[in-house]
Amino acid sequence: MAPPATLPARSSWLPAVERALAEDLGSGDVTTRAVLPEDRRVEAVIEAREPLVVCGQEVAAAAFGLLGGVEVEALRGDGERAAAGEALCALSGSAHAILAGERTALNLLARCSSVATWTRRFVDAVAGTGVAIVDTRKTLPGWRSLEKYAVATGGGVNHRSGLYDAMLVKDNHIAAAGGVTAAVKAARAAAPAHLWVQVEVESERQAEEALAAGADSLLLDNRSLAELAALAARFREHCVLEASGGVGLANVRAVAETGVHRISIGALTHSAPHVDVALEVAAWPGASR
Amino acid sequence: MAPPATLPARSSWLPAVERALAEDLGSGDVTTRAVLPEDRRVEAVIEAREPLVVCGQEVAAAAFGLLGGVEVEALRGDGERAAAGEALCALSGSAHAILAGERTALNLLARCSSVATWTRRFVDAVAGTGVAIVDTRKTLPGWRSLEKYAVATGGGVNHRSGLYDAMLVKDNHIAAAGGVTAAVKAARAAAPAHLWVQVEVESERQAEEALAAGADSLLLDNRSLAELAALAARFREHCVLEASGGVGLANVRAVAETGVHRISIGALTHSAPHVDVALEVAAWPGASR
Amino acid sequence: MAPPATLPARSSWLPAVERALAEDLGSGDVTTRAVLPEDRRVEAVIEAREPLVVCGQEVAAAAFGLLGGVEVEALRGDGERAAAGEALCALSGSAHAILAGERTALNLLARCSSVATWTRRFVDAVAGTGVAIVDTRKTLPGWRSLEKYAVATGGGVNHRSGLYDAMLVKDNHIAAAGGVTAAVKAARAAAPAHLWVQVEVESERQAEEALAAGADSLLLDNRSLAELAALAARFREHCVLEASGGVGLANVRAVAETGVHRISIGALTHSAPHVDVALEVAAWPGASR
Amino acid sequence: MAPPATLPARSSWLPAVERALAEDLGSGDVTTRAVLPEDRRVEAVIEAREPLVVCGQEVAAAAFGLLGGVEVEALRGDGERAAAGEALCALSGSAHAILAGERTALNLLARCSSVATWTRRFVDAVAGTGVAIVDTRKTLPGWRSLEKYAVATGGGVNHRSGLYDAMLVKDNHIAAAGGVTAAVKAARAAAPAHLWVQVEVESERQAEEALAAGADSLLLDNRSLAELAALAARFREHCVLEASGGVGLANVRAVAETGVHRISIGALTHSAPHVDVALEVAAWPGASR
Amino acid sequence: MAPPATLPARSSWLPAVERALAEDLGSGDVTTRAVLPEDRRVEAVIEAREPLVVCGQEVAAAAFGLLGGVEVEALRGDGERAAAGEALCALSGSAHAILAGERTALNLLARCSSVATWTRRFVDAVAGTGVAIVDTRKTLPGWRSLEKYAVATGGGVNHRSGLYDAMLVKDNHIAAAGGVTAAVKAARAAAPAHLWVQVEVESERQAEEALAAGADSLLLDNRSLAELAALAARFREHCVLEASGGVGLANVRAVAETGVHRISIGALTHSAPHVDVALEVAAWPGASR
Amino acid sequence: MAPPATLPARSSWLPAVERALAEDLGSGDVTTRAVLPEDRRVEAVIEAREPLVVCGQEVAAAAFGLLGGVEVEALRGDGERAAAGEALCALSGSAHAILAGERTALNLLARCSSVATWTRRFVDAVAGTGVAIVDTRKTLPGWRSLEKYAVATGGGVNHRSGLYDAMLVKDNHIAAAGGVTAAVKAARAAAPAHLWVQVEVESERQAEEALAAGADSLLLDNRSLAELAALAARFREHCVLEASGGVGLANVRAVAETGVHRISIGALTHSAPHVDVALEVAAWPGASR
Repeated sequence: MAPPATLPARSSWLPAVERALAEDLGSGDVTTRAVLPEDRRVEAVIEAREPLVVCGQEVAAAAFGLLGGVEVEALRGDGERAAAGEALCALSGSAHAILAGERTALNLLARCSSVATWTRRFVDAVAGTGVAIVDTRKTLPGWRSLEKYAVATGGGVNHRSGLYDAMLVKDNHIAAAGGVTAAVKAARAAAPAHLWVQVEVESERQAEEALAAGADSLLLDNRSLAELAALAARFREHCVLEASGGVGLANVRAVAETGVHRISIGALTHSAPHVDVALEVAAWPGASR
Repeated sequence: MAPPATLPARSSWLPAVERALAEDLGSGDVTTRAVLPEDRRVEAVIEAREPLVVCGQEVAAAAFGLLGGVEVEALRGDGERAAAGEALCALSGSAHAILAGERTALNLLARCSSVATWTRRFVDAVAGTGVAIVDTRKTLPGWRSLEKYAVATGGGVNHRSGLYDAMLVKDNHIAAAGGVTAAVKAARAAAPAHLWVQVEVESERQAEEALAAGADSLLLDNRSLAELAALAARFREHCVLEASGGVGLANVRAVAETGVHRISIGALTHSAPHVDVALEVAAWPGASR
Repeated sequence: MAPPATLPARSSWLPAVERALAEDLGSGDVTTRAVLPEDRRVEAVIEAREPLVVCGQEVAAAAFGLLGGVEVEALRGDGERAAAGEALCALSGSAHAILAGERTALNLLARCSSVATWTRRFVDAVAGTGVAIVDTRKTLPGWRSLEKYAVATGGGVNHRSGLYDAMLVKDNHIAAAGGVTAAVKAARAAAPAHLWVQVEVESERQAEEALAAGADSLLLDNRSLAELAALAARFREHCVLEASGGVGLANVRAVAETGVHRISIGALTHSAPHVDVALEVAAWPGASR
Repeated sequence: MAPPATLPARSSWLPAVERALAEDLGSGDVTTRAVLPEDRRVEAVIEAREPLVVCGQEVAAAAFGLLGGVEVEALRGDGERAAAGEALCALSGSAHAILAGERTALNLLARCSSVATWTRRFVDAVAGTGVAIVDTRKTLPGWRSLEKYAVATGGGVNHRSGLYDAMLVKDNHIAAAGGVTAAVKAARAAAPAHLWVQVEVESERQAEEALAAGADSLLLDNRSLAELAALAARFREHCVLEASGGVGLANVRAVAETGVHRISIGALTHSAPHVDVALEVAAWPGASR
Repeated sequence: MAPPATLPARSSWLPAVERALAEDLGSGDVTTRAVLPEDRRVEAVIEAREPLVVCGQEVAAAAFGLLGGVEVEALRGDGERAAAGEALCALSGSAHAILAGERTALNLLARCSSVATWTRRFVDAVAGTGVAIVDTRKTLPGWRSLEKYAVATGGGVNHRSGLYDAMLVKDNHIAAAGGVTAAVKAARAAAPAHLWVQVEVESERQAEEALAAGADSLLLDNRSLAELAALAARFREHCVLEASGGVGLANVRAVAETGVHRISIGALTHSAPHVDVALEVAAWPGASR
Repeated sequence: MAPPATLPARSSWLPAVERALAEDLGSGDVTTRAVLPEDRRVEAVIEAREPLVVCGQEVAAAAFGLLGGVEVEALRGDGERAAAGEALCALSGSAHAILAGERTALNLLARCSSVATWTRRFVDAVAGTGVAIVDTRKTLPGWRSLEKYAVATGGGVNHRSGLYDAMLVKDNHIAAAGGVTAAVKAARAAAPAHLWVQVEVESERQAEEALAAGADSLLLDNRSLAELAALAARFREHCVLEASGGVGLANVRAVAETGVHRISIGALTHSAPHVDVALEVAAWPGASR
């Protein structure tokens, strides 16, 4: 079972929200300034326009927090499912701030929820197999930690954060080093004890070499179901086996049933279908203009 | 015809490339450091794995530029089409830098090319109608200007950059102001002469009011083909008509044929299908380890 | 009539206030630290030393806000006139913070008020003509948005924010393109619908060409009153006419009476006479040292 | 005689040039992009439109340096005088970069040269007296070090950089401490040996107290010529005497002749009359469009 | 007697605390997230593990402040002595925040207290002589102002902050200028009145030259006790004498008794022995898991 | 054997060098500006004043690189030993830049070399035992990655970079969770496969529990030699054993001989004795002043 997802530290993503707000606001929301008095207040909700797994509530709320003068009440927590039409959060306060932050907040909430919702589809597809659905580094530039949070929110498991917190000896490393054994031995020798060494292998022979040289895990990229099953039968007791490559909703369960421990899927982040969320005004209190 | 796309000033997107690189690199590419000597050189290409419209060559190259020691030669310019398997650029130089920058460069190139490729699909679908395919503010937070460049690269036309460089009087503004006339007059009065005033209208009556109050353009959101055709017949000589809402590849030509001048489509950016690009090593020159 | 001025978003100018404070404070106010105990409190006012139009109250207050421990009460709002000797705001709290922030706050308030006061002089000079007084890009580097706010506070109208939010085809563009028609057609073709195209013209012939090629506005730079009147008579119904060049208080009304719609004046920002504001201590409560 | 002016370290002002460029460029120079091909080249000069003391050549050049593709040749060094019409520097290279950087470079050069030119007027006015013309902290927020450089370029002498690098015991400090002696003794006790202690005094009695308590210099603010002469006669051998307050070109020599050592003048920076500089295109080489 | 130490402005060191926190936290405290529920609370103290002079309480507290949800009560003020085992501050609040900020806060507090404690040893060693113990620029990169604060907290006196706020004519300057007189005259001529000019001299002859040329202070580097005594006898009435070089606890009093006014010691900052501080949990209130 | 140390990516530490330079330079090196002409050149070396392990050559050189106009030739590579008096690098170029960057470069080089030299002492002390000397998170705030590089340069092995790249279940986690088993199971469940889980244990019983619950490594903090030997005998085949607490040069070999795999030592970074490096001018070429 996947661990509960934990939102990265606020300080790690708040500057990105500031930048997002800044690129949309520039010198200001000229329309709202022209049309509404500065002290105008509004009540609104952000609602799901289709079924989704909620993700990014605090991040979206932060857009309003940066603008000030808005109260945000979350009605659905990250990780909960929402039906089409359900309200995800309630906003009240400065109409200037709410209209100025609307698009930034929606873009953030939609992106996080899209990844969480899509991940949940894969997780549900392998339900009962005990196989973990794992992300990759194919994330939107600048949003790595938040997208990994969205994967976890959808029930997925996070692979390494980047090039620095685990070793992954890939085909190019092996070619450069002149073979699996040389590459993995070099990796193992250089790796402080706490660093995981995963090795991409293309055959049983390479898998044997990798394990003999000290690999903690094998990455089986673009293998057929038959190959995966054979490798799993032979090695699943000896290390963590991860399948990847060409995995979609249609075949993920079949891959899971080969006996690998986890399946990493770039599409979790690079191809999550957009889920639509929208802001609806509920009331214009004290409308007196 | 759309104007030629121009890449935003380097200084406007380079920090984002730096952040993207930093989130992937952290304290460094531990695997490559362990396995390859620092002076190892490599030659590689980045190639298309499926047909696409190339976009983001300079941005991707900048990732290697920031790392240093890599020569990048673009083989296809932004806006050109590439077939599956075609090389988009050639890399040579430090293997450490090329492997460290690989994922960041690919993520950037794939994202830009995805939006350009998807936009091109829509542009081709309305070929001959003279209707412009226009983007929205539904972009990935922090990448607005680059995504707008990708839309232009795909033959689309850019709508306003953000809340600051054009007025768009939307349903909520109209509700707050107590009507189209009041809202548009307030907008027009406050708008310096150089600011465009576009108004979202839901009926012929609202359209009349908006034009009378000084609107430069009408946004016709979620109107049926019949409504669009009626509004276009009546108003297309008097202002710029823009349709939006629920437009996909299946119906975009029908919308274009109603007589509107442009069609804005959030899906250009929020739902562009991922196109796959990959780095392939061509040679390990002077392999002497 | 000019729209009400709206202060740019706090996040857009607060870093500049921080930098201003940092350059003055460096490692700290060594004198105040040496002479006053840390818990000393003071009450003071900032007052006008000459008649002025108040501008920048929130910006100046932010300097104290960044230091903390000071309450600032605005006694005159931005845009109001103040006589010599009138108090603009009242301060109370930490003497360390008030003395440390004094010069930065005064410099900010004086600068904004100088521009607002100077602009108001020009606006008053054309009162009744309906002509707008417009700023230029000749602003102090780094303070563009705040100076444009000061112009608006003084009753002026803002021209484009920068090179990005409107097109201005100038003499150099025309020379490079080989003529007005070529330049303006290229601009018009490339301009998304929402971008205003203004063209600098030197003759009736150029004006005709520009309008035929699609200009929204003509900039008439350094034209005589007679030329302006002739151009206005012919074109003022067809586009927005803007005069500029060599306009001062002495001749601004004459220019306005030629029939142009607006007059842009670099001196609003580059030559606004300094208005003096000063901090006066009102009381040293609980002086017990 | 004033020491030669030295431009502050590039790293200390380059970020401010970047910000200035960014606020003008935003997402780019839309006009130039539309009208000129990217590879178009141009030759131009920046020239003085009125007599001035040149200042800020490197700073202005840095704007083009940040854009790239422009060669800048300085024709007059900082501190040299230029007549109206004289060329200050020659530019050649990318027309896109030169037109995009033009306004930022001109704004920087004009501001620095304005302060240098104005300072030179004061310095010339006291020629032969040996009295130094000194700046204050009444500088444009964020440009302190560059404006101090401009003062030095005009032949002035810099006062402290900020609140941190010298002590200035002012009237409010004295009031808070309960007298000159108490304030100056506290300052002297706290001041590390290398910190100068200047004291603002209003009478001979206060001057005596200040010197007895260890002041290095006396600031004589808003004193009449007679008072200044009396104080100078008595104290000029014992410490550095600085006059300030209400000093203009009309009376600066009279103040200098009272016998004080230096005169500090806020107007050097807050009221320097704008000097006009402009970019003129010299040639469009290889115009082939 | 040394002046009371004053903590530099919060804005000057808070970004460094943010960076320190960021480098430790990265994408988050994975252990605490996994093991403790988010709403778990804890009470703890930070205590001295050995006798020390407390320094850096606000700086350490800021680490928790940045994380949020923690109340910090200082039990010993900066500058107070604490015995081994004494609690320095009490923490209560979010266990996630307290455990995440623990190491950063301890590293900050230990570093500041180490310098203060070590400085106090030197200050005590010269007690009664009236000689000041002065720091140097041999500080940890990036922590200059905070280390100078720690020196002051330990009873030391701060030398110049950097290369900018006092002149120190060193051996290399003298060699380059061709002699003491030439170097010091150039320095004196260029120095605004408020800048102190200290000169490093190696002989009585050089000392005479330096004073004749206008030095405010002499730096006597690596002189024997006999040389120091001779120079002090001759020059201590005429300028500030500062000894430096090879001074440790063993000989500092002997140096002080030569008659110099102050002794500068790089070891105050570069060799302060680490003092140990640690966080101890006092209670897990409401432990209900 | 420890892997070769690799300097972190330049972009990760260059901003810290910039900040270090900025805090020393402020508005500039006033002395050098006054005394030396701007075009003066100098040749110099940086030399060891005592035996040391060189570390930080590129970092120190970067200080000069940021100033410009200096050529730096490394004479000893990082990790090499140097005797007292040996030149570590040769500098030639602008005297202004070399004197301005001197202290920053020396502070950086001294700090890195101090940690490398001190680490080497510990590594040599356990030579032949196969035990790794490991660092901790007790590093100077803001310099974590560079200090870890210095440890590696001295032959040490890096522990986790921060709280994010490995789990370390400490006494407080165990107390909060109600026992070793609960804490470690929670950690193991939440840890993605690539995250190492180390557990601090105080007894054989706790060690058993930790291993049963899935620990990869045991941290034995403040255990006696006898306890370490007993634990090593029992568990060294089953997991990585790390000793810590109270380890100095005097006892590190004895600890190593108990059979643990690694010893982590906070003193590597918090108590590395300062090694002295200094800049010596070799020649003043073309001295013509």
